[in-house]
Amino acid sequence: MTQDRGPSTSELAARTSCDSHQAPTGQHTVSEQAARARRAARILARANRGAKDNALHEMADAVDDAVRQILTANAEDVAAAEQGGTSEALVDRLRLTEERVAGMTAGLRSLAGLPDPVGDVVRGWTNPNGVQVRQVRVPLGVVGIIYEARPNVTADAAGICLKSGNAALLRGSSSATHSNAAITEALRRGLTQAGLPADSVQLVRGPRSVTDELMAARGQVDVLIPRGGAGLISHVVANSQVPVIETGVGNCHLYVDADADLSMAIDILLNAKTQRPSVCNAVETLLVHREIAEDFVPEALKQLADAGVTVHGDALVAIHASPATPVVPATDEDFATEYNSLDIAVAEVDSLDQAIAHIRRYGTGHSETIITDSQPAAQRFVAEIDAAAVLVNASSRFVDGGEFGFGAEIGISTQKLHARGPMALPEMTTTKYVVTGSGQTRA
Amino acid sequence: MTQDRGPSTSELAARTSCDSHQAPTGQHTVSEQAARARRAARILARANRGAKDNALHEMADAVDDAVRQILTANAEDVAAAEQGGTSEALVDRLRLTEERVAGMTAGLRSLAGLPDPVGDVVRGWTNPNGVQVRQVRVPLGVVGIIYEARPNVTADAAGICLKSGNAALLRGSSSATHSNAAITEALRRGLTQAGLPADSVQLVRGPRSVTDELMAARGQVDVLIPRGGAGLISHVVANSQVPVIETGVGNCHLYVDADADLSMAIDILLNAKTQRPSVCNAVETLLVHREIAEDFVPEALKQLADAGVTVHGDALVAIHASPATPVVPATDEDFATEYNSLDIAVAEVDSLDQAIAHIRRYGTGHSETIITDSQPAAQRFVAEIDAAAVLVNASSRFVDGGEFGFGAEIGISTQKLHARGPMALPEMTTTKYVVTGSGQTRA
Repeated sequence: MTQDRGPSTSELAARTSCDSHQAPTGQHTVSEQAARARRAARILARANRGAKDNALHEMADAVDDAVRQILTANAEDVAAAEQGGTSEALVDRLRLTEERVAGMTAGLRSLAGLPDPVGDVVRGWTNPNGVQVRQVRVPLGVVGIIYEARPNVTADAAGICLKSGNAALLRGSSSATHSNAAITEALRRGLTQAGLPADSVQLVRGPRSVTDELMAARGQVDVLIPRGGAGLISHVVANSQVPVIETGVGNCHLYVDADADLSMAIDILLNAKTQRPSVCNAVETLLVHREIAEDFVPEALKQLADAGVTVHGDALVAIHASPATPVVPATDEDFATEYNSLDIAVAEVDSLDQAIAHIRRYGTGHSETIITDSQPAAQRFVAEIDAAAVLVNASSRFVDGGEFGFGAEIGISTQKLHARGPMALPEMTTTKYVVTGSGQTRA
Repeated sequence: MTQDRGPSTSELAARTSCDSHQAPTGQHTVSEQAARARRAARILARANRGAKDNALHEMADAVDDAVRQILTANAEDVAAAEQGGTSEALVDRLRLTEERVAGMTAGLRSLAGLPDPVGDVVRGWTNPNGVQVRQVRVPLGVVGIIYEARPNVTADAAGICLKSGNAALLRGSSSATHSNAAITEALRRGLTQAGLPADSVQLVRGPRSVTDELMAARGQVDVLIPRGGAGLISHVVANSQVPVIETGVGNCHLYVDADADLSMAIDILLNAKTQRPSVCNAVETLLVHREIAEDFVPEALKQLADAGVTVHGDALVAIHASPATPVVPATDEDFATEYNSLDIAVAEVDSLDQAIAHIRRYGTGHSETIITDSQPAAQRFVAEIDAAAVLVNASSRFVDGGEFGFGAEIGISTQKLHARGPMALPEMTTTKYVVTGSGQTRA
């Protein structure tokens, strides 16, 4: 009898120490990198939670040990960006500090504390003929992440992929190339130290055409997740042959109903607009029911002005403007814009129906909020708004993997297939039916 | 206070009776049809199970009442196909009989007996701050189905979409156009009778370019599901801007391990190859471990020959051929082919590793089977084969929505995102997070 067994730990270590002597990053075509990722993914798919959690700690240790090299590399990127005239906001996103690096390693260590989705039995039953069926979570395989300036995504995405048993192909911004390379090298050293394949995490370097190669790698890459601005995401969605998970574009609305508690509405408005304006679950448009506009709008304008928010209002909102509470005229473009800044578009609506129609027209299906004490109004809003999240009397800032208690988040999906809303570890898996019999055949 | 409430039943009926006076099928552009489907989908999303089940029965009644018109229309299609020199197998797929129409209406009625996935709370919890989060199943919206000759798919797909709250855009084969139109008209009459929008089910007619328009309708159509041969499916996957669920291509393997019960292996081989060779979960390649080849292959060849199966074997298999059990030489092409006929490719392998490598190379990720009494071999096969279903000692013919007890099936997904394996009603939904607070803001 042939004894076919899985590789031993020492065999795994041998394979991976070989890998670790190869060029660490990006001196290969995408196809070659994807093939190496596929081989790594096969080993990761069988790695148990202990092995993966150990690797996450080793990866964190390696990043900690490399903090000087990472900051030096980052200084190169920052200097180049500043010389190139990059905006200060973008340079800030690019810049790493000891604290930000510590945040990356804390993230890796916290992933080790989360349950492993792989192997979870989603459901299972026994057919009348005795055939047992179990639907089991398994990794997706090879996951490509295409992202913009922030180099901390390199460690975050690598960690989430590793924990969920996926090999990661990381395509970062050219502006962060030295930082990403230094971080990736550290992560790969950690993987090797832990006896898992270094090729579980690879940086995909090269010219723009490399992104096209990634998008064409159907059958080699199982899913692409673009993380960044609307331009990046729509480019990937429109051009990829590899299945894409669309994340993050949030033109989110706050509708203050005729039956709203106005003081609650002000609190939630300020929180949802100003607590962190640059993120996708911040509110971008305020819709106010005509019946309460006279009571609500002047106070809202005052509070928004005090918080430094520029109001782009329609004609009915502008009526309430004053020298202390100015209103910039809103165009159609304003209502279609995800500002990601201390700006808000404001419109008056005649009815819940009109609010719903406005959101259908301009919304991106991310997070939509109603403030109301009317149960029928809340019920209709929840039923009729087609979005990843609908909120009643709560800030849209709660639509977040961390706030949901997921412990990790790769992004917030605004598409309907596979995952919708905050995507955590289980969303980074697929399932496999395992069917076990004792010789049954179909009648 | 404004009283915003949902439409009453009489309002729904008024809207839909208006719809029913419009041209029943396909005299509009895809974009117009999709817009009408979107409006219908909004009403369907709020229809409760009773309303949808009633509509399924009315649709079945209307098809029963229209059986003569449907058979007459079908006779036109069949005559045209025969005149055009279509193969008898394809003409048989196209042909409807009273019995086949009765099968369609029985399918619609049985859908009414299944639970409604819409509104199911997948999970829910309360955050420490009192914010309640529920993840609720909601319809996908507008579902496009692109399918080939068999006109019964028209009723099946319409019923599954309706039950799951989705509007259906049905793009059938031009060869079945009269049949599909007659069936669709009956289904729409049933919907109107039930007070639901006739535009919940629309046939998309016109030249080939119409399929391109469907594939370009991102944002208007939520998902496309191609049902048919490998050519159709890969064309849609490669060209669609609308998210696609890939179904049905099954180059399925049966691996007979060194530790197999050989009598069980024969039973399962015959069942999986011959019980219904035209379907995607039938076995197309037999892999035999070298150690048991001498005992197993001659008996397998004999049984396959008796069942009328043509064996395409590699050189090691050909050794066991005889005049009564001929073996056609197998090419690489044979191992890559989904025969869907009484043909099978057979190869000898040296080890479980080689069997896994063969399946990785040629498999389509559908259903892969091992016959073995070795627990380690079964475990490795289950862990290392990346497919929608892996089977141990059972026929791959069990990988089927009906056999799984799902009661309905739109297809068997061979992709990893959203749904993998038999797709039933829950797989025709997405989810929405409903977040309910009492004024909470994020700290």
